[in-house]
Amino acid sequence: MTLITLTTDFGERDGFVGIMKGVILSIFPQAQLIDLSHEVEPQNVRQAAYILQRAVPFFPAGSIHLTVVDPGVGTTRRPLAARLGEQFFVGPDNGVISLWLAQAEAQAAPVEIVHLDRPEYWRLPLSNTFHGRDLFAPVAAHLARGVPLQELGTPIADPVRLELPQPQRQGKVWKAVIVYVDRFGNLMTNLSAELLGEPLPQVRIRAGGYRVEGIVPSYGHRPAGSLVAVIDSDGFLEIAMVNGNAAHRLNLQEGDMVEVECL
Amino acid sequence: MTLITLTTDFGERDGFVGIMKGVILSIFPQAQLIDLSHEVEPQNVRQAAYILQRAVPFFPAGSIHLTVVDPGVGTTRRPLAARLGEQFFVGPDNGVISLWLAQAEAQAAPVEIVHLDRPEYWRLPLSNTFHGRDLFAPVAAHLARGVPLQELGTPIADPVRLELPQPQRQGKVWKAVIVYVDRFGNLMTNLSAELLGEPLPQVRIRAGGYRVEGIVPSYGHRPAGSLVAVIDSDGFLEIAMVNGNAAHRLNLQEGDMVEVECL
Amino acid sequence: MTLITLTTDFGERDGFVGIMKGVILSIFPQAQLIDLSHEVEPQNVRQAAYILQRAVPFFPAGSIHLTVVDPGVGTTRRPLAARLGEQFFVGPDNGVISLWLAQAEAQAAPVEIVHLDRPEYWRLPLSNTFHGRDLFAPVAAHLARGVPLQELGTPIADPVRLELPQPQRQGKVWKAVIVYVDRFGNLMTNLSAELLGEPLPQVRIRAGGYRVEGIVPSYGHRPAGSLVAVIDSDGFLEIAMVNGNAAHRLNLQEGDMVEVECL
Repeated sequence: MTLITLTTDFGERDGFVGIMKGVILSIFPQAQLIDLSHEVEPQNVRQAAYILQRAVPFFPAGSIHLTVVDPGVGTTRRPLAARLGEQFFVGPDNGVISLWLAQAEAQAAPVEIVHLDRPEYWRLPLSNTFHGRDLFAPVAAHLARGVPLQELGTPIADPVRLELPQPQRQGKVWKAVIVYVDRFGNLMTNLSAELLGEPLPQVRIRAGGYRVEGIVPSYGHRPAGSLVAVIDSDGFLEIAMVNGNAAHRLNLQEGDMVEVECL
Repeated sequence: MTLITLTTDFGERDGFVGIMKGVILSIFPQAQLIDLSHEVEPQNVRQAAYILQRAVPFFPAGSIHLTVVDPGVGTTRRPLAARLGEQFFVGPDNGVISLWLAQAEAQAAPVEIVHLDRPEYWRLPLSNTFHGRDLFAPVAAHLARGVPLQELGTPIADPVRLELPQPQRQGKVWKAVIVYVDRFGNLMTNLSAELLGEPLPQVRIRAGGYRVEGIVPSYGHRPAGSLVAVIDSDGFLEIAMVNGNAAHRLNLQEGDMVEVECL
Repeated sequence: MTLITLTTDFGERDGFVGIMKGVILSIFPQAQLIDLSHEVEPQNVRQAAYILQRAVPFFPAGSIHLTVVDPGVGTTRRPLAARLGEQFFVGPDNGVISLWLAQAEAQAAPVEIVHLDRPEYWRLPLSNTFHGRDLFAPVAAHLARGVPLQELGTPIADPVRLELPQPQRQGKVWKAVIVYVDRFGNLMTNLSAELLGEPLPQVRIRAGGYRVEGIVPSYGHRPAGSLVAVIDSDGFLEIAMVNGNAAHRLNLQEGDMVEVECL
């Protein structure tokens, strides 16, 4: 049994995801299908990249991650499949694997990327507007049933990479960027606990005109309605409002900056 | 292993879909369950019919499609099960299978429809307000575990059929109807590429006070923000806005008309 | 094959639920995973309790219900697992099992509750903000693969219990409380058909400034737009608007009162 995760901006209403599952199970009925998210904001590749990055480490080695956020469908953008470490990826060449790829390279883990150019593994005729159905789902299914990556396409070394903001240090102040806002309105930054150092320093955070003092162990350590900073479950600084929505309160969104002063 | 798809207007929040799955798996633990959509607009049978129609061809022969959009629950509307071609359907007699039924008839494929009138295959006592749980889920499970269609009810020949708009030709102009709007705001019409003829003619489209010139191969062939016409992945004319929402821009919805002039 | 249901306030967008599934399947690949709801209002334990209560009876004996609505994550609130009757539960000690626990006690069914205090069954290091991933998902997986409840923690007898409103009778008038509003805007009250008596009495209901006369068998017995009262599929009085949204029309929500006068 091979596990295939699905991440798209298709939404839950129109049946597009179910169609991809029908295609996969028609080719490989034993596949185990897990939805990561289908509520990626339309065409927001960066958001999909963060969702994927956070989830992938929790899947068994050999899992296949099918990610279709595809504003370039039907143009010359390449379809890709990749092995990065012990995990596999299938989707358009839009940079969605950038974060995981950088990590695999940093760890000198196996990296193989192929341009999917073997129509014998697709559903033909190929439509111009739904490669999730006609190309990526079939390829994921064939990969799951054991077709080697090298059979599915031609090796490449130049996948699209997203430019990812890095936190900047100026003296005692880190300028960090909000890279993801979750459904609770928690603001995930790109500043890791590792960069802040151990033990965690006392900090004063300026975000959206508000100040947050100190990092608490978890939300429940302050009364409801308080703004708090925590280290999130992936090891990054997060700004949250206890039992509330920090994004709404601070009027901040993905891409906005916060300042973290080490005291 | 038999595949059962589920399409409802139950939403994702209240647990109704999970309850139907619990009922199915209590009867037939080997069933493989795939959600098509649970975000059908409440009571919008026509919307469910289009979602179903588009998805069914991508499921293996012998799949069972359980569709519960049921404003008439607890009244005299009949519960049905059907074999149409190589696919099976279970749900209230509300016309949701009309599109697929018309196609099966046009292709002289097998058509068998039964009125579900054998309570020994239901969950009793039958509630008046949740036949999805008490009648349709159990029947789908029994069908999946191999009970023949004829065992589940009495043959009928007069299922409810939706009146479906057909595109009208007046000289060089097609009057087409928007039959579905997807989450991207793409407007799917009822005008097929087949009717437009091959090769595709030059066209000028009038929709919501705007003009769209020509049919492009895919969204990415025009800059972001452009209105484009494409042939969608099911072979119908679609009006879209590149990386945007055509339904919002044009202020059009299901049932509205567009004019397609062949030049 | 053991069935695990999942109920959370994590939403469908961020991938948190998929992560929990990855953790479960890494430990016990044979688990069968069914989503009940991930659209519980953030931190609304009471809402989750009603969703769970309604769904649990429809799952096979031995099913495991993993419920993570966890405003107290990372504080001293206890993590629990429980056997209540023939069903199992895993989640924070927040009262979400209150309804089912009361019922098990009333029926003198088996009740065993343990404080999850054996880190050898967790994913370590334990984060402070995502026990769904690090503690509850692993424990549910170990339970599913056959680890006895007693192995997972220490027995306790004082789980948190929600205070649940009971309907009050004053002469011929019941004061009932709306305990749940579903996606259709149907208002589920805490007044059971059993309390109303058999045969059902003639009633006049006052709700949000409107009057509803009598209880009808189902929605379809009145024209679209009518306000009706029905006995819902769980045996409780429900106020609905035929093909419409009673919650919007009456401007009522969870916790509001309705009066039911027996004539």
